[in-house]
Amino acid sequence: MLRHIVLFQFKADVSPAQRQEVADAFAALPHKIPQIAAFEWGTDVSVENLQQCLTHGFLVTFRSEADRDAYLPHPEHQKFVQLTTPRIEKVMVFDYWVRT
Amino acid sequence: MLRHIVLFQFKADVSPAQRQEVADAFAALPHKIPQIAAFEWGTDVSVENLQQCLTHGFLVTFRSEADRDAYLPHPEHQKFVQLTTPRIEKVMVFDYWVRT
Repeated sequence: MLRHIVLFQFKADVSPAQRQEVADAFAALPHKIPQIAAFEWGTDVSVENLQQCLTHGFLVTFRSEADRDAYLPHPEHQKFVQLTTPRIEKVMVFDYWVRT
Repeated sequence: MLRHIVLFQFKADVSPAQRQEVADAFAALPHKIPQIAAFEWGTDVSVENLQQCLTHGFLVTFRSEADRDAYLPHPEHQKFVQLTTPRIEKVMVFDYWVRT
């Protein structure tokens, strides 16, 4: 499986309701984009103070790079990007093939 | 489940063999620390250029905050930290409770 980690820091003036709207919109994508094999998310509860201002994390799973590459330009993903980008101070994206 | 994301950027002078040694040492921890419920890792294959120089990612799963809090000061984890810290340029740690 191919994991796709996305971590957000919101701009300071983005309200809690607007942050939740982004999380809800991300969580709706698995219902709209069949290439998403699994999805989960959550807000940071780490205790090591190494989260570097990132507060919202999303873990998207794909079965192949082809599925990931179909997801990125997908119109529903692009609508999400348009909603989210103006509200984001920093974004970190890291993809990896699962090894154990 | 409580997810614990750890992402590393190595210092430039750390060799590929030394990087692999760190990954192998991390991958050995689930066999030494019973509080680790699941473990996986991989190197970045993202295509969006938002990985911010982070190259090695690890996803550790715990059943509770108590298990995470027992893991962090665990002697085997601390040995890993001592091996790793001198080789690391940047580390990002983000924990979240899984929501779907």
